[in-house]
Amino acid sequence: MDTVAAEPFTISDIERAAGRIAGHAVLTPLLGSLALDRIAGRRLLLKAEPLQRTGSFKFRGAFNRIAMIPEAERARGVIAFSSGNHAQGVAAAAALHGIPATIVMPSDAPAIKRRSTEAWGATVVPYDRATGDREALTATIAAETGATIVRPYDDHGVMAGQGTIGLEIADQCAALGVRPDAVIVCCGGGGLIAGTSTALADRLPGVPVYAAEPAGFDDTRRSLESGHREENDPGARTICDGLMAPRPGALTFAVNRRRLSGGFAVDDDRVRAAMAVAFEHLKLVLEPSGAVALAAALDPTTLPQAGTLVCVATGGNVDAELYRSALDA
Amino acid sequence: MDTVAAEPFTISDIERAAGRIAGHAVLTPLLGSLALDRIAGRRLLLKAEPLQRTGSFKFRGAFNRIAMIPEAERARGVIAFSSGNHAQGVAAAAALHGIPATIVMPSDAPAIKRRSTEAWGATVVPYDRATGDREALTATIAAETGATIVRPYDDHGVMAGQGTIGLEIADQCAALGVRPDAVIVCCGGGGLIAGTSTALADRLPGVPVYAAEPAGFDDTRRSLESGHREENDPGARTICDGLMAPRPGALTFAVNRRRLSGGFAVDDDRVRAAMAVAFEHLKLVLEPSGAVALAAALDPTTLPQAGTLVCVATGGNVDAELYRSALDA
Repeated sequence: MDTVAAEPFTISDIERAAGRIAGHAVLTPLLGSLALDRIAGRRLLLKAEPLQRTGSFKFRGAFNRIAMIPEAERARGVIAFSSGNHAQGVAAAAALHGIPATIVMPSDAPAIKRRSTEAWGATVVPYDRATGDREALTATIAAETGATIVRPYDDHGVMAGQGTIGLEIADQCAALGVRPDAVIVCCGGGGLIAGTSTALADRLPGVPVYAAEPAGFDDTRRSLESGHREENDPGARTICDGLMAPRPGALTFAVNRRRLSGGFAVDDDRVRAAMAVAFEHLKLVLEPSGAVALAAALDPTTLPQAGTLVCVATGGNVDAELYRSALDA
Repeated sequence: MDTVAAEPFTISDIERAAGRIAGHAVLTPLLGSLALDRIAGRRLLLKAEPLQRTGSFKFRGAFNRIAMIPEAERARGVIAFSSGNHAQGVAAAAALHGIPATIVMPSDAPAIKRRSTEAWGATVVPYDRATGDREALTATIAAETGATIVRPYDDHGVMAGQGTIGLEIADQCAALGVRPDAVIVCCGGGGLIAGTSTALADRLPGVPVYAAEPAGFDDTRRSLESGHREENDPGARTICDGLMAPRPGALTFAVNRRRLSGGFAVDDDRVRAAMAVAFEHLKLVLEPSGAVALAAALDPTTLPQAGTLVCVATGGNVDAELYRSALDA
């Protein structure tokens, strides 16, 4: 379901998105801790999107995209497919716009994510991750109902909403009097990092932006190296359930190939350790997918010359059982 | 070690404290969640002091008090006794002022609190909670070294620093266009609630302020009813290790008897449940002592007519083992 962009993606898209989400999305804090800096051996600042509405950055993109639907089409609602956080973001953004939402969700998604999506009044349609075709199912329902499809990443409206994080990082660094040596962003399909890197190229030109991905799902890292979109091994597994996209998006990679300086692959043990560090030193709950950038930044072999790093922590929607196991590691 | 106040405690003390801590303390967010509101059956807003420096509100009072030490006396350092969060607050504030700190700490304090205090360069002197006299030990060391004693609550400088939370709550409610029906504050010795209630009486006059205390340690609630300072049963136990003061402070109760509208006692099971709610719906780590106000607000029998409550969540310094058990409840 590749999408063709009619227009280039620019900072103006992100600035307009910032205007649309203002007063609806949380301006999340940029957290730091001297104790954390001692552990890391450098200054780390963490953009705390677990404190965003619905517990992840996905609300930003969903709200912006839905706000762009023409008035005449809104009553037919929206439909999305998602392993969870995008689902909650779409469900909440639709509810706040007063329109119905249908979410096609893998039947093995974390219970907390399904529960939270339904709590926003959305209709959840489960599918089997191994045998089902979520894109075909979504397209069929959309054709029947006339609902607008809100893609998880490969859409300029979604990318622009996520990119508002880059505008906020630049403002918050300026308020602290800090110029980061690099920014590391958790990366699945690449929408967040496409938006964030575009915003940062405008607001903090020259600051490199890197993707952090789970080991086995480092398609963006490998695609940046090869110059074209690489696939992940279908047999790969990770606890980072939100970052299991099979390949970079077409629209996102068109941006990311120009904007990004590289990527890092992080194994699940480092992800669990980063969750425990955020618990002890930031008092912030991170889900595995949300901890990948922090895990990369905590690795001393990552950008060893960088004295100050900003990481985007993308979400905190994690089942209690998995969280308990991360604290036990 | 009762203290006699030479001057009345006023809003001016708090406004001056706000000027001193600006740029040093975190302006913590006032968090909310529609999912949380549905569970509570009313709107809850949570002042997130776990995101404060050192993981609790104690940094505010310690920083303000140390900033008030005359220049000529600073080199002799500071000394404090504390079960943990005040220790970290004093250690960090002293380090940021470039002066030495000695902390008299119970030998059974949570490991995370001792570790974090020492990480700030403070000298920890352990004492046995059952047999030792921490006040005499502190006074002896202070007499020998000339260090200034930074009391955990019964000091106008400390109360004023904690009271900056009340100023911020009023500003943040105004930004949201919300007038709370009541504010609930976790209460041990009463310093935080004395400062916060004084600030709110000035900025949001007529909004009642209530103390939340652990069951068995509801000395402030009982003292407000009887009109004089009541003692707790020395045999009482709670998981809220930061709220085990034996009785209200002299200076704090002189303020609180005029300012507070009452108090609520919360048992440990409700505290654990509130910690789990903050995990799931706010992605915020709360320690037991920091969850008491939220626990009270989640109880439908607490102020049943109140449609909007602000709770102060005071800290997030909790050992992983205890936290895991709260999520398992």
